[in-house]
Amino acid sequence: MQPLRVVQLGVGAIGREVCRLVLERLNLHLVGAIDTNPDLVGRALSEVLGLKEDCGVVISNDTEAVLEAHDPEVVIHTTSSRLPEVVHQIELAARHGANVVSSTEELLFPRLNRPGEAAKLEVVALDNNVSILGTGVNPGFVMDTLAVAATAVCRKVERIECRRIVDASTRREPLQRKVGAGLSTAEFQSLLAQGKIGHVGLTESVALIATGLGWRWERIEQKTEPVIAEHEIQTEFFHVQAGQVAGVRNSGWAMIEGCERIRLDLQMYVGAPDPFDEIIIRGQPNMTVRIPGGTPGDLATAAILVNAVPIVADAEPGLLTMLDIPIPRCRR
Amino acid sequence: MQPLRVVQLGVGAIGREVCRLVLERLNLHLVGAIDTNPDLVGRALSEVLGLKEDCGVVISNDTEAVLEAHDPEVVIHTTSSRLPEVVHQIELAARHGANVVSSTEELLFPRLNRPGEAAKLEVVALDNNVSILGTGVNPGFVMDTLAVAATAVCRKVERIECRRIVDASTRREPLQRKVGAGLSTAEFQSLLAQGKIGHVGLTESVALIATGLGWRWERIEQKTEPVIAEHEIQTEFFHVQAGQVAGVRNSGWAMIEGCERIRLDLQMYVGAPDPFDEIIIRGQPNMTVRIPGGTPGDLATAAILVNAVPIVADAEPGLLTMLDIPIPRCRR
Repeated sequence: MQPLRVVQLGVGAIGREVCRLVLERLNLHLVGAIDTNPDLVGRALSEVLGLKEDCGVVISNDTEAVLEAHDPEVVIHTTSSRLPEVVHQIELAARHGANVVSSTEELLFPRLNRPGEAAKLEVVALDNNVSILGTGVNPGFVMDTLAVAATAVCRKVERIECRRIVDASTRREPLQRKVGAGLSTAEFQSLLAQGKIGHVGLTESVALIATGLGWRWERIEQKTEPVIAEHEIQTEFFHVQAGQVAGVRNSGWAMIEGCERIRLDLQMYVGAPDPFDEIIIRGQPNMTVRIPGGTPGDLATAAILVNAVPIVADAEPGLLTMLDIPIPRCRR
Repeated sequence: MQPLRVVQLGVGAIGREVCRLVLERLNLHLVGAIDTNPDLVGRALSEVLGLKEDCGVVISNDTEAVLEAHDPEVVIHTTSSRLPEVVHQIELAARHGANVVSSTEELLFPRLNRPGEAAKLEVVALDNNVSILGTGVNPGFVMDTLAVAATAVCRKVERIECRRIVDASTRREPLQRKVGAGLSTAEFQSLLAQGKIGHVGLTESVALIATGLGWRWERIEQKTEPVIAEHEIQTEFFHVQAGQVAGVRNSGWAMIEGCERIRLDLQMYVGAPDPFDEIIIRGQPNMTVRIPGGTPGDLATAAILVNAVPIVADAEPGLLTMLDIPIPRCRR
């Protein structure tokens, strides 16, 4: 089997992890890397990644030229959380005949919050005979796909709860900033209102679970609150005093036939004492699936994007969700 | 959407659970039930199931006639563990244009131990434009599919261990008998040699994991040992004295590039104090997935068979494994 030609679109923190991983995989061949950041354009990717061996890729800001030159089977897309900001990037890749695996959180289940963009991408995917998938760890796996998969052995499901507790102090600096560590409550609320902090994708996870189980929702809602530090915390990047914001708690839920049948609880804060992921299914049988320590976000997000590449290359054309494909797996 | 027409082939303990469940599902319509047991043939299925309402199905021993009359989209097949004993049943269903979901343990990964039957079924499936899948809880989910799914978030996997500890005293009588509860060690070894006790399917689980991860094995092996009761145990069905057999321990492993990289450890015995399922992935990241209490075998086996029905009806034709399809989920 020829390795699949892959272009990386977005060479930020996650994109760099993706590139490292694609370069390790025997079944994938990294043929191009795209970013608009002037600090990156024109530089050798290997140098940016800190690799000794040159992989022969130079970072370009000309998406069309890279796609034309390398005709990739798959574009891995990691630029932004919001679909309207990136839909043109994904469209461009699809129009060049590339399948797309994207970390854009709203693309996990785009029909929920971005029906216009979803419809557009569906048409573009079918017209160009490619598939487009949004995935990741959260959203994408631990609070949605894995929960749906766990119901494989259930006769009946009444309710699903997922909890993910992340100790943000073990994560990269932008993530600690994104959860609001070190802010006052007023600053937190102000930045939250501006969309500058907080998590994107929880309602998409709720919708994915509901759809997987064939549940029609009356409404899907979410709220975001600060987690307040009870004592002083010092991370590598932030100093948080007692009473300041330690991080964020994002809850999402679905009302289905008058009942709250899905509840997701995501807490990401510095100093969380016992990180874990947990899925609790109430039904026949009742079932708990637990990942002690939790799934490490950054490393794992890059991994699932890369692991999804052969699956998406092989999938039926269209705008896909994680419900439509075999679950990605870690292949050499 | 019209409900899928389903025929149940095999009305033993698991088959009855399957029927109950199919009757509950809005997306499925149970149109026939087949068994050769003279105690069942000609009886109303509802009566055998102990249901008040008549579902209109009479148990037949004439497979061809049932398939002809009802033209099912899917046959759920639960008759025996060994593929050579049942391959003609599966073939017959496929030749009538029915997709097949089967609990036959050796069908989880038939190419491993039954390559002849596998090749035959592959041809029959393609010729008749149907898909054939072997699944279940174990083999089928907790010690194989779920382990592969968990690697979705892994950058690298070095080794996978799965452990499943089942308290057989909570299971049905045939299962307690199958694990050898109450036997002497000599009786256990004798019945084991005759293939009358023990678990079927562990090497198939090993092969499924290895294939999912793209690992080529030098060899896959397994061994079965008795678990000896340390103290007296009384179950609903068996009395086990200290020193007698409490149950079975079945280990399976794969040697890959000279290393044991997969190890499965299945213990099913009466009085197991702390039942659980556990998947331990050594790699990047290390990861543990745990199901406290474990997945209850009988109920869950029926559930995953039924949950696989719409997925298999929708799948590409061929002899499939759990790696080829979206993971089944519990839909209403």
